[in-house]
Amino acid sequence: MSQTRIMLDEKDIPTHWYNVVADMPNPPLPPLGPDGNPVGPEKMLEIFPGNILEQEMSAERWIPIPEEVREIFKLWRPTPLMRAHRLEKVLGTPAKIFYKYEGVSPSGSHKTNTSVPQAYYNKQAGFSRVTTETGAGQWGSAVSFAGQMFGIEVRIYMVKISYEQKPYRRSMMQTWGGNVFPSPTNMTQAGRDALAQDPNNMGSLGLAISEAVEEAASRADTNYTLGSVLNHVLLHQTVIGLEAKKQLAMVGEYPDMVFAPCGGGSNFGGIAFPFLADKAAGKKVRLVGVEPISCPSMTKGIYAYDYGDSSGYTPLMKMYTLGHNFMPPGIHAGGLRYHGESPLVSQLYHEKLIEAVAVPQLATFAAGIQFARAEGIIPAPESCHGIRAVIDEALRCKETGEPKTLLFCLSGHGHFDMFSYDRYLSGQLEDYDYPQELVAEATKDLPKVDWPKAA
Amino acid sequence: MSQTRIMLDEKDIPTHWYNVVADMPNPPLPPLGPDGNPVGPEKMLEIFPGNILEQEMSAERWIPIPEEVREIFKLWRPTPLMRAHRLEKVLGTPAKIFYKYEGVSPSGSHKTNTSVPQAYYNKQAGFSRVTTETGAGQWGSAVSFAGQMFGIEVRIYMVKISYEQKPYRRSMMQTWGGNVFPSPTNMTQAGRDALAQDPNNMGSLGLAISEAVEEAASRADTNYTLGSVLNHVLLHQTVIGLEAKKQLAMVGEYPDMVFAPCGGGSNFGGIAFPFLADKAAGKKVRLVGVEPISCPSMTKGIYAYDYGDSSGYTPLMKMYTLGHNFMPPGIHAGGLRYHGESPLVSQLYHEKLIEAVAVPQLATFAAGIQFARAEGIIPAPESCHGIRAVIDEALRCKETGEPKTLLFCLSGHGHFDMFSYDRYLSGQLEDYDYPQELVAEATKDLPKVDWPKAA
Repeated sequence: MSQTRIMLDEKDIPTHWYNVVADMPNPPLPPLGPDGNPVGPEKMLEIFPGNILEQEMSAERWIPIPEEVREIFKLWRPTPLMRAHRLEKVLGTPAKIFYKYEGVSPSGSHKTNTSVPQAYYNKQAGFSRVTTETGAGQWGSAVSFAGQMFGIEVRIYMVKISYEQKPYRRSMMQTWGGNVFPSPTNMTQAGRDALAQDPNNMGSLGLAISEAVEEAASRADTNYTLGSVLNHVLLHQTVIGLEAKKQLAMVGEYPDMVFAPCGGGSNFGGIAFPFLADKAAGKKVRLVGVEPISCPSMTKGIYAYDYGDSSGYTPLMKMYTLGHNFMPPGIHAGGLRYHGESPLVSQLYHEKLIEAVAVPQLATFAAGIQFARAEGIIPAPESCHGIRAVIDEALRCKETGEPKTLLFCLSGHGHFDMFSYDRYLSGQLEDYDYPQELVAEATKDLPKVDWPKAA
Repeated sequence: MSQTRIMLDEKDIPTHWYNVVADMPNPPLPPLGPDGNPVGPEKMLEIFPGNILEQEMSAERWIPIPEEVREIFKLWRPTPLMRAHRLEKVLGTPAKIFYKYEGVSPSGSHKTNTSVPQAYYNKQAGFSRVTTETGAGQWGSAVSFAGQMFGIEVRIYMVKISYEQKPYRRSMMQTWGGNVFPSPTNMTQAGRDALAQDPNNMGSLGLAISEAVEEAASRADTNYTLGSVLNHVLLHQTVIGLEAKKQLAMVGEYPDMVFAPCGGGSNFGGIAFPFLADKAAGKKVRLVGVEPISCPSMTKGIYAYDYGDSSGYTPLMKMYTLGHNFMPPGIHAGGLRYHGESPLVSQLYHEKLIEAVAVPQLATFAAGIQFARAEGIIPAPESCHGIRAVIDEALRCKETGEPKTLLFCLSGHGHFDMFSYDRYLSGQLEDYDYPQELVAEATKDLPKVDWPKAA
C-alpha cells in the first residue's frame, strides 16, 4: 500500500502567508457604513491593532510569518496530510482521497493558526489584553492558548447557556489561563441592559459579541479578536493549503477538487486559497465550499451588504447572507451557524471561481461516523460537512470510473462534540431544509447600500 | 532554537516489539492458583487466544509486529518526540526535557498500541467477539476502535455510574461501533447476582471485569481483552520506547532518566523497557515509575502473590500490591487506581533495576497546568504524574546545575478529563497520603503462597 501519512519537517512550516487578494480578478469591495460610505480604518482601530489592520487591507501576495509565530507553530505544525486508504476501500472508489488534519493542534482545531498571530500582533503593538466571544468554546479555547503563549490576558464572553451546560470547554480555557465570563455579564452596558430586561437571560452569540467588542472599544489596552470572516483571519489560515500542496507534491499528486466546510470561511479559505493561486495561473482545479442545508448562506442566501453580527454593530460587508437576524433551527447540531459568508469567499463565489454545495444534517453525521470507522479520527461536526461532500464525489467517481484526486481539510476532532454525536446516534436529530422564502423576508430590511455607490 | 519536534517516517514504525523478559536477570515468576501450584495455559485459553498466550509466556527478545498491525499504526504512528523548550525556559533549568506524545492516537492515548494487536490476534485465531470492562472509558474506546479496524464485535461492560455520568466516552465507543452496556447487566450471572442483591447497584470496575470475563469464558467465539498488567500488553507498548530511542539518537541525545506514570504498568513498560535493554548491556540510565501517593502500590505496597482483580477471579500474580480490595479514596481524580503493579514492573522494581516515586494529587494537577501553559497540550491526569516527577527533577538540576537529559511519556491528552481539571481549578480536590498501616491490614488475608514453593 502506498504512503498513508505524508509528513513535513518543522523547517517546512511556511515562511509566508498567501494573500488571495493579489490573485482576485477584482479588488475586494470595501466595508460600508449605513450611509453607504466606506468605513475608514479609524473605526476599526478602536478594536484592532494597526499591524493586523494592515494585513486586513493588504493586496501583497506574500506576507511574512513572524519567527515568533513560527516558533509556536512548531508545537503542532506542520500537520499531517493523510491518504484515506481505508475510506477509499470501504467506498470502493477509484478516487484518491487525501485529508489535511488540523485536529493535532493544542485546542484541537485549525483556529490556533490565527489566534496565535493575532495574540502576537497585539503584543507587538503594545496591547496587553484581548477580548472575544465564544459559543461552544472552540474559538475561545484557541484564543486562551494563544494569549498564554505571548503573556496576553484573554477575556472571553461565553454564552451563558453554554457556560453552564458545556463546562469542559470552559475548563480548557481556564487551564490555559483564560478568564471566562458567562454572558450577559454586568461588566458591560450591553450586558447590563440585557439583564435589566431579563435577569435570567441565558445569552446569545450576538450579545456575547456586543460585550466583547464594547470592552475592547472602551479600553486603550484592549483589543478584540475574531476567529473567522475577516480577510486577515483567512490569510492566517493559508498555512493549511500551503503545506498540503507541498505534501501532495511529495507523492506526485495534485487535487482535481478541494473541499472544506464553509461557515465563516476560515477553514475553506485556509485550504482552498493557495490552490486558487494556481487556478488564477491557468491550472485546472475545482474548489468547493460545503455548508449545511439548514444554514445555507451561499446556496440560498442573497449577495448583499449586511452586518457581520446580529446586533448591527459592525460595518456592512458585501457577502452572501441569510440576514443578520438568522437563527439556525434548534435541531441543528453541526456548527457552521453563521448567517453570512466571509466577504472574500463570497466575492470569489459570486465571480464563479469557487463552488458551493449544501448537505443535510443526518447524512453529514453518517459521513462522520463512516469516516471514524474507516480512518479512526472522530471528526468535529463542522468537518463532517466536508467529508459528506467528498464521499458523495468519491461515490460518483465509482459510477463513472474516474480516478479523481480529492483533498479536504479535516479542521478538527470531535472530542468536545460527543454530545452532538450522541444526539445523532440516539435518533434525536433530523434534517431541516431552510426555506428559500425566508431569505427574502429576513433580508428585506437591510440598509439599501451597494458599491460602487449609485450616482 | 534547536529542533522542537522530532518526527519519524511511517517506514520507521518498529518492525518488532522488544520483550524485556529476555534481559531480566531472573525469569518472571509464574502465576499461581490458590493451592500454590502454577496455573497452566489451559485456564488462560478460556479467555485469551493461543497466539496472545504465546507472547505472554515468551522469552524471545524480539517479537515481530504483523504487517496488518503496522498498517493500522500508520494512522497515527510514529508519534512525535518533542523537546519541551518552553517548559525548560519557564523552569529555568539546565536540563533538557523531551516527551513522547501518544495522545495523537484516534482514542487519544497509548492504549491503542495494544488494543490493535489484541484485536488482530483474536481475528487471526478465529474469534469474532471480544469483551472488556471500562471505567472512565479510555480502554473501552481503544478496544472499540481496534475491533472496528479488524471487523471484530466489541462488547464493553461500562461501570454504570460512569455510563450515566460520563456519556461522552460512551458515545465515542459507539461511534466506532462498540456495544456498551451499563454494568451490572442481567446478561451475566455476576450481574444478575449483583442486581438481585441491589437493583440500584451502580457498578464497580471489579464487577464489570467479572461480567466481561464471564461472557468471554462462557462462549467459544469470544475472548477477553485487558489494557494493562499482563506481559503481552507491556510488550505491545514497547513501540513507544523503541521510537523514542531512535528519535533521541537523531538529535544526538540519550536520556539520563526516563519517567512514566505507573498504574498497571503499560505506560511505564512501553517507554522504559527498551532502555532497560541498554541498562542490561551496561549503559547508565535511570528508569522511574511515578504513582499517586493515594494509590502507592510500589512505594508502600508489599511484594506478594495477590489476585489481579478485586473479586479474586484471576490467578495469583507476584506483584507489589495494596491488597486486591483496595479502593482509591473518593477524592482521588487522577487515574492510576489499580491496587497492584504489573508482575514484570514489580519484579524489576524488586530487583532494583527500576525506581519508583509517589507524588501528591494537587502538585500533580499543578504540574499538568504548568505543562499545558508552556507546551500547549493538556495532559491526561495520569500523564500529569510523570510530568510532576520530571519537573521536580528539572528543578533539582537547576539547583545543582546538572544539564541532565530527561525523557517522559505523555501517554494521552486530557480532553475527556476536563471534569477532573474543573474540580482541581475550583478547589475541590485535596491530597490523600495513603497510610502505611492500611497495607498490612488489607493484605493480611491473602493466600499464603509463594514461588519457589516452600519444601
